[in-house]
Amino acid sequence: MKSVFKNKRHAPEEYVEGILNGERVMLGKAITLVESRLDSDNQLAEAVLEKLLPHTGKSIRIGITGVPGAGKSTLIESFGGYLTASNKKVAVLTIDPSSQKTKGSILGDKTRMESLANDPRAFVRPSASGATLGGVHSRTRETILLCEAAGFDVIIVETVGVGQSEISVKGIVDFFLLIMLSGAGDELQGIKRGIMEMADLIAINKADGDNIKRSEMAMRQYENALHMFPPNDNNWYPKVITCSAINNDGIKEIWEIICNYEAKMKETNFFSINRQQQNLQWMHDAIKDQLQNSFYNHGPVKNTIGHLQQAVEKEKIPAIVAAKELLNLFFQTLKS
Amino acid sequence: MKSVFKNKRHAPEEYVEGILNGERVMLGKAITLVESRLDSDNQLAEAVLEKLLPHTGKSIRIGITGVPGAGKSTLIESFGGYLTASNKKVAVLTIDPSSQKTKGSILGDKTRMESLANDPRAFVRPSASGATLGGVHSRTRETILLCEAAGFDVIIVETVGVGQSEISVKGIVDFFLLIMLSGAGDELQGIKRGIMEMADLIAINKADGDNIKRSEMAMRQYENALHMFPPNDNNWYPKVITCSAINNDGIKEIWEIICNYEAKMKETNFFSINRQQQNLQWMHDAIKDQLQNSFYNHGPVKNTIGHLQQAVEKEKIPAIVAAKELLNLFFQTLKS
Repeated sequence: MKSVFKNKRHAPEEYVEGILNGERVMLGKAITLVESRLDSDNQLAEAVLEKLLPHTGKSIRIGITGVPGAGKSTLIESFGGYLTASNKKVAVLTIDPSSQKTKGSILGDKTRMESLANDPRAFVRPSASGATLGGVHSRTRETILLCEAAGFDVIIVETVGVGQSEISVKGIVDFFLLIMLSGAGDELQGIKRGIMEMADLIAINKADGDNIKRSEMAMRQYENALHMFPPNDNNWYPKVITCSAINNDGIKEIWEIICNYEAKMKETNFFSINRQQQNLQWMHDAIKDQLQNSFYNHGPVKNTIGHLQQAVEKEKIPAIVAAKELLNLFFQTLKS
Repeated sequence: MKSVFKNKRHAPEEYVEGILNGERVMLGKAITLVESRLDSDNQLAEAVLEKLLPHTGKSIRIGITGVPGAGKSTLIESFGGYLTASNKKVAVLTIDPSSQKTKGSILGDKTRMESLANDPRAFVRPSASGATLGGVHSRTRETILLCEAAGFDVIIVETVGVGQSEISVKGIVDFFLLIMLSGAGDELQGIKRGIMEMADLIAINKADGDNIKRSEMAMRQYENALHMFPPNDNNWYPKVITCSAINNDGIKEIWEIICNYEAKMKETNFFSINRQQQNLQWMHDAIKDQLQNSFYNHGPVKNTIGHLQQAVEKEKIPAIVAAKELLNLFFQTLKS
């Protein structure tokens, strides 16, 4: 594998200094570094992260997701613009699981949020979803830390598309915002089951023009639906509001709910307890990912797994027998 | 570790023959064998499973869960009794994650479902939740296969208590029944978020006496709430009914819904596709569990993980740096 840097690597101190000075170019380079799959890049990235760690943690981390067509990017533009106008520095990290195939998301996302991308107080960074088993780019947590060290007050992690990524994002943010539309039928097809129960806030977007009444009705329906759910661990009752990103309606209200949430969670200490648990989870996730990567990329395992999978699918051999065979292969050749 | 059998092991063929003849004692012994953590027992268990595999798969596998106090065991008694009276052979496997601590569940569960336990067409088997990371006893899938080979037509997997186990059970059954109560407030505290979206049927139990009206109201509320969810992959719209296990009301209806589900899913081929996917998932889960067991039980890892966890929690070192340190330790000593 070639280094992603074409001889342009820096000493850890240079990244650290640049990021702490809020230099965008250096931040961008450091993110590329943490996203690299090259061992030497990883070591460098870890050294940088270790030095930056004392300067992290001060932002509010917001996860935003929604069905395709719900107007996520318009809402993030409007919301981000509102925040930068109030003197906040905002970083937007986009996770697109589908972009692994197209490899075209980077330009696309920058175009999607044009005004925010050109806002001097904002930083928009799309990440192609890398080789990760969980769905979230396994380096998004590191990228959050880098952005915090660079002085961003609000980190928005946007997930695009359907899949596991929304569920994993819940585990790396403080607040989870779900964007929905008034029609509860076909539009819901795109959203993964189980997501709704994770939301701290549901915003019903496109509540404008002819759509206002329908959106308000949907709001009440979602409120009723949420009442059927058990309360969250943190005693927060998920809110539902309507908004119109295109008209900047309801944007201020979203921010107020988030601020209210942050204040309450800090009062009960849930905020820091949650982050501690997330840190531990992060460690265990990294271990799990790395163990599985080693296993599934192991030569003899790779050569054998195909026909065993077929046999398991067709119920020719029990799944645990196939698993045992592969595990023996893995551990034996590791030892030799 | 001592063998669980005190010199009473049989040859694989004896287990196979006994199980295919429907001998309860042999079935019980084989389940104890698959649940054993002893390597030699595991090898024997795998040999038995391989031989039995062609005789498995013909039952309908039903997951049943609900909040504590919802009347799960009464409902299973009533439901199981209805089925055995219709000449079905019914196996009930209970998973109690909490029993790991008390170790008292086995007697307790048998007493819980006394009439079913004494029913010649029924087989009740509680499993203490063993050392598994996922929550479900990692041997429940194997136990399902053994019961199928022994000729049981309906396998009920009951999960008791709160936690991950309900979510994992979804991945090993064909149909998922959630038992609720009419009050949507405190009773919901005990149920894990995300469970409701997984149900194929919600049965509101204790719809008797003064409670009938409230239960019917709850039914309509749940129906409305479920309408807000995206449809299932299989185009099944989850049903909601009321029932009274103690009066045997609604029990026949539960079975009719399950039969209807089975027929529809077999028509669209989803039934077998789902089982194939579950088989593959089972293999990958077994691999993941075993990799993580090897890792977390590795001497040097065990000696080091404690202080690294603390450092990660307190944000003294980045989680990935701690993970890397432990992984290096693991792979280095494996190779040496």
